[in-house]
Amino acid sequence: MDSTLFVSIFAPLIGCLALAVVAALYLWLRKQDAGTEQMQEIAHFIQIGANAFLRREFLTIAPFVVILALLLLVAMPEGKWQIALGFIVGAAFSMLAIFIGMNAAVRANVRTTAAARSSAARALMVAFRGGGTMGLSITGLTLVGIAGLAALFGVTRGYPESVHLLVGFGFGASFSALFAQLGGGIFTKGADIAADLVGKVEQGIPEDDPRNAAVIADQVGDNVGDVAGRGADLFESGVDNIIGTMIVGSAFIPTYGWMAVLFPWISEAIGAIGAILGVLVVRGTEKRNPIVSMNLGFLTTALFAVASYYFLGVYVMHDTRIFYCLTLGLITAVLVSLLVQFYTGITQRPVKQIARGGMSGVAINLIYGFAWGMESAVIMIILVAVVNVIAFYIMGGGLAGILGITAATLGISVMKGIIMAADAFGPIADNASGIAEMAGLGSQVRRAGDVLDAAGNITKAITKGYSMSTALMTSVVILFAYLLSAAQLAGAGSGSLTGLVAFGGASLEEATLRIVRHLSLAHPLNIGALMIGATVPFLFSSQAMKAVGRTAFRMVDEVRRQFREIPGLLAGRAIPEYGACVDLGTRHALREMVVPTLVGVVFPITVGFLMGPWALAFYLIGVKVFGATLAIFMFNAGGAWDNAKKYVEEGHFGGKGSEPHKAGVIGDTFGDPLKDTAGPSLHILIKLQNILAITLLPLFYAYGLTWY
Amino acid sequence: MDSTLFVSIFAPLIGCLALAVVAALYLWLRKQDAGTEQMQEIAHFIQIGANAFLRREFLTIAPFVVILALLLLVAMPEGKWQIALGFIVGAAFSMLAIFIGMNAAVRANVRTTAAARSSAARALMVAFRGGGTMGLSITGLTLVGIAGLAALFGVTRGYPESVHLLVGFGFGASFSALFAQLGGGIFTKGADIAADLVGKVEQGIPEDDPRNAAVIADQVGDNVGDVAGRGADLFESGVDNIIGTMIVGSAFIPTYGWMAVLFPWISEAIGAIGAILGVLVVRGTEKRNPIVSMNLGFLTTALFAVASYYFLGVYVMHDTRIFYCLTLGLITAVLVSLLVQFYTGITQRPVKQIARGGMSGVAINLIYGFAWGMESAVIMIILVAVVNVIAFYIMGGGLAGILGITAATLGISVMKGIIMAADAFGPIADNASGIAEMAGLGSQVRRAGDVLDAAGNITKAITKGYSMSTALMTSVVILFAYLLSAAQLAGAGSGSLTGLVAFGGASLEEATLRIVRHLSLAHPLNIGALMIGATVPFLFSSQAMKAVGRTAFRMVDEVRRQFREIPGLLAGRAIPEYGACVDLGTRHALREMVVPTLVGVVFPITVGFLMGPWALAFYLIGVKVFGATLAIFMFNAGGAWDNAKKYVEEGHFGGKGSEPHKAGVIGDTFGDPLKDTAGPSLHILIKLQNILAITLLPLFYAYGLTWY
Repeated sequence: MDSTLFVSIFAPLIGCLALAVVAALYLWLRKQDAGTEQMQEIAHFIQIGANAFLRREFLTIAPFVVILALLLLVAMPEGKWQIALGFIVGAAFSMLAIFIGMNAAVRANVRTTAAARSSAARALMVAFRGGGTMGLSITGLTLVGIAGLAALFGVTRGYPESVHLLVGFGFGASFSALFAQLGGGIFTKGADIAADLVGKVEQGIPEDDPRNAAVIADQVGDNVGDVAGRGADLFESGVDNIIGTMIVGSAFIPTYGWMAVLFPWISEAIGAIGAILGVLVVRGTEKRNPIVSMNLGFLTTALFAVASYYFLGVYVMHDTRIFYCLTLGLITAVLVSLLVQFYTGITQRPVKQIARGGMSGVAINLIYGFAWGMESAVIMIILVAVVNVIAFYIMGGGLAGILGITAATLGISVMKGIIMAADAFGPIADNASGIAEMAGLGSQVRRAGDVLDAAGNITKAITKGYSMSTALMTSVVILFAYLLSAAQLAGAGSGSLTGLVAFGGASLEEATLRIVRHLSLAHPLNIGALMIGATVPFLFSSQAMKAVGRTAFRMVDEVRRQFREIPGLLAGRAIPEYGACVDLGTRHALREMVVPTLVGVVFPITVGFLMGPWALAFYLIGVKVFGATLAIFMFNAGGAWDNAKKYVEEGHFGGKGSEPHKAGVIGDTFGDPLKDTAGPSLHILIKLQNILAITLLPLFYAYGLTWY
Repeated sequence: MDSTLFVSIFAPLIGCLALAVVAALYLWLRKQDAGTEQMQEIAHFIQIGANAFLRREFLTIAPFVVILALLLLVAMPEGKWQIALGFIVGAAFSMLAIFIGMNAAVRANVRTTAAARSSAARALMVAFRGGGTMGLSITGLTLVGIAGLAALFGVTRGYPESVHLLVGFGFGASFSALFAQLGGGIFTKGADIAADLVGKVEQGIPEDDPRNAAVIADQVGDNVGDVAGRGADLFESGVDNIIGTMIVGSAFIPTYGWMAVLFPWISEAIGAIGAILGVLVVRGTEKRNPIVSMNLGFLTTALFAVASYYFLGVYVMHDTRIFYCLTLGLITAVLVSLLVQFYTGITQRPVKQIARGGMSGVAINLIYGFAWGMESAVIMIILVAVVNVIAFYIMGGGLAGILGITAATLGISVMKGIIMAADAFGPIADNASGIAEMAGLGSQVRRAGDVLDAAGNITKAITKGYSMSTALMTSVVILFAYLLSAAQLAGAGSGSLTGLVAFGGASLEEATLRIVRHLSLAHPLNIGALMIGATVPFLFSSQAMKAVGRTAFRMVDEVRRQFREIPGLLAGRAIPEYGACVDLGTRHALREMVVPTLVGVVFPITVGFLMGPWALAFYLIGVKVFGATLAIFMFNAGGAWDNAKKYVEEGHFGGKGSEPHKAGVIGDTFGDPLKDTAGPSLHILIKLQNILAITLLPLFYAYGLTWY
């Protein structure tokens, strides 16, 4: 059996293995103790709400998916059915991953609470394995989906052109992810803000108090926003990443053979095995900080990946430089997580300074949070820029350098599964604390929950920074995939593609030359497209934030209404109508996600047709670079505000109830839609536009206006 | 006398005329009634504080200017003394313009208050003519400075290469402007925030209450931040604009003769005459809203400019398309002002929604303000992008298209003088209200002052949007000036420069070809440079905002200390130590401006040397596009928050003292450093980096690392 065939079979098998582990983890979870009847009732409310949201979300997406698939079937000049089918499968797999991961999470939450009654270590394990189902689902489904479609389309039978047919799968995954993250993000933050504003600020009752009508909606939001949204996001990242690297890889078949196209699969399979090992290794102890246990999981995955990469680079690709580039990407993932920990960590200078700023008034707290958030974006984007350039020159520049960037991108994204597990751990632990509070469990249980919750805040912040860096790296690869595809359409043979990136050489073919000239910065059309691209993240974020504002505004009214109209509610003698808030949030969130989604889709299509495929490349880089910078600012500012509030609550600067604490609460609430709605949706916007551009490129090329 | 010689004499003469009108306005102002002894005493405090700040600022800048001039003298490969001399003259002229304009403003303020006692119309005229001195100073000094240096360096004697020698003048103007805007911006917002936080929020005393120790510092801040800072900014814009257009124009000598280089001077002279007419035409009436009177002034300038442009395009340049492009720029200026009025106007939907958001809590107010601010940036940047592309194609694309963009840039910047006059009117009116409050004048005088103040808020917002659009247009021109200069260094003859922008042509010379390839988006080094450039506005803003936070933090302590330690201060039986606050603000602001300035200077130099002159072009476009988008967001969000607070104060949603009002105050305070420190400084950052790059280009070309 030759090595190509081996990889074609091996990769989807590893995917199936990951899914089998998911099933085993799920069964294990079901067997855990689910606590008292009251706890189970609360958990049941959350499950019903979360599933109602998902059902409505899927029903909202379905017609869009069908219509777009039909449009693709009609409009695409080539590969009609493959792209349309891939689109449907991509959207379906994304929804499946969300469904599996979220259903595990809404069962793990109450079992974490139950475990916390006897053992904090056990609680950590339950929560982490709950998150692990999501992490392993996305890597498993990625491998199975891509390998399956590739076999169906004949990619693995050696036709390089057929690699392009996979873009539909990425487009479908992106499309579903945008809805999931936006809808979930609007829901979760609308509910969270409303619960805080009416509960904590107006009525002075604690967080997660059962008298607050928005409290179940808030818990549901953690699942549909943080678990489902982030899961869809990372599923999409992985898919886009692999497809982009395969397209770029197809330019390297002359050097590395067909393995140039398939080595991304091996990297993904390494990530899947590493994640399985990592998830199984995480076991709490009664004394150790949970973040230490999770770091052991990360370390396990990372060490396995480095060892496997050595094998991949040296013995499969026969090029040690590829091993260096893969490892460079892996190191970047570590650096990113350290940077995020500095800018949002509760013991670090930025958070302390923001908290102290509150002593002079809310505005100073806000100003410091804003400023530190902006600064954090600088160093992370520069890191990505530098890693790109280094990977490029490790391979000696030129076309080979692009393969280096590709490898580094695979290296950063190999940690995806384990990081997703740790991320989904966050909302599970958050839910677990909430259930403990609502069920009136003792302070010891709540304390155990709070420790897990604090660890979850860190892992959530790390994931966001990590996934944005991954997205930016991926988007550079996809830019090159786009340019290579465009060059092929423009008639440049794959041999002459070297000219696209090899400066200073003397023998450029005419077709390549034309492309290079089209991509010049020295053309106002290109500059104009860059400007337009740069503004799209602003437009998108502004719409998302207004949507959160409107949803919260309505939900505040509803919670106030219930306190006013339900007799005895504040005194604890009546139960609020939780369902009314969940329902209101669901309707609003799903309606509100339409406009931002249209922004995401209409802009690149318009630019592609009106300004042409070359200017579209400048548009895309504008969206990517500015979107990434803005998103990182949003994550870190939001995370830092959140932790500044927690820092004051720990007793500094006057503690709970003091002026700095009020300032902290306002900063945290303002930061919420930044870090949990607009920011994470920006990722997906970036990747959606990338993959959309590649998918529709033949149309832009055939029917777009020609300016030069 | 040939037309070239005529222009060379005519343009500086118009500059002298503008300066003569400045002198006449100043003498007219001195003759106006300065009010009661108490009013004069307050005004005297402000004058002393403002002049002390300027003196310290100039002393801080001077050594930097001397050192940089010496470095230029040593390091520049060619044109050593001209560039060093130009740098010194540019910085000196900038400081002179600031000095003249600010001294007129600190005399106009109290005379506006005095006039308001008998006639609101008279008060408007005094304030507007006070602002007019600044507007006319900057256009006058621009014309005199450029024409004088051009004569000295032999530019008007017909050596195209000598045009480049003028870049030192622009660099000097930019350098001084960055200090003025940053130092002034940090001072003014530090004082403003401290005065509000301790006065309005903590002690519950009115704005501008004489018991507040920071109140004089706040008034001084209006002058050193808004008047001096914005004046330096627009002076720099004009200078950079003219130099950039002259450099681009030098590529058109074969088509349009030497007039291609000099027609920017004519446009500037048209702007100067238009501004003189506009300033003289503004006279209030007792009934009319002051903004209507000012609109008459704008209209006068605009009509004069259009008529003159027809003459310039058709009879001087003999190309009607140039007239179209100039007029297109002028129309853009009008559209920008309308857009700003929508996004920040007190009667418009965004401001009302922000204000209403406060009913559900501070966070919703903040979220809406943030979202609307982001949206406002989108449409303005897209407008600039579209205008660029239209101007390019009006001239038929290709190299000629670049001249179209140049002409549109001149068209937008022709309104500079009159808009600066209206802008400086704002802080004068603001000061006038403050003096009325502090001197305890009757409510009728205060009401007249408030009407002027509200009009001033609109003109300030318009100016910021206008100057950012101008800066972005200018920066595109300067990018091409940079590329043309780089192309010349790379050995492309001026005849072959066509290839730089003419796509699809068949006969590219080898030198041009090399340049086009260097400017390809398809190179990771260029993408990396773009990423780094995109982050610099974030880094710069974050440093500027932290500086404001720190300064405000200290000043809050000082004001609290005075309330605590000076017996009888709150009861009104003692006078606070105003000087202590002014002094503290001055020291902090001047110390704090050093780090952001270094960011502005060190980054482009590092990129230029390490990544080379071509990647630097990508870096610069990143800084420009992202900086402009961010700045417009900051202006408009800040302006909208300010007016949302005012809207509540007018009695909506509960009026003064209500929860929405408190939310409004917090939003306004948070927006202050965005709109008055970081945002305006970003303009200057953009232009400084442009002109710095052009100035040092020969060094980068000679000593920078070569990557491809």
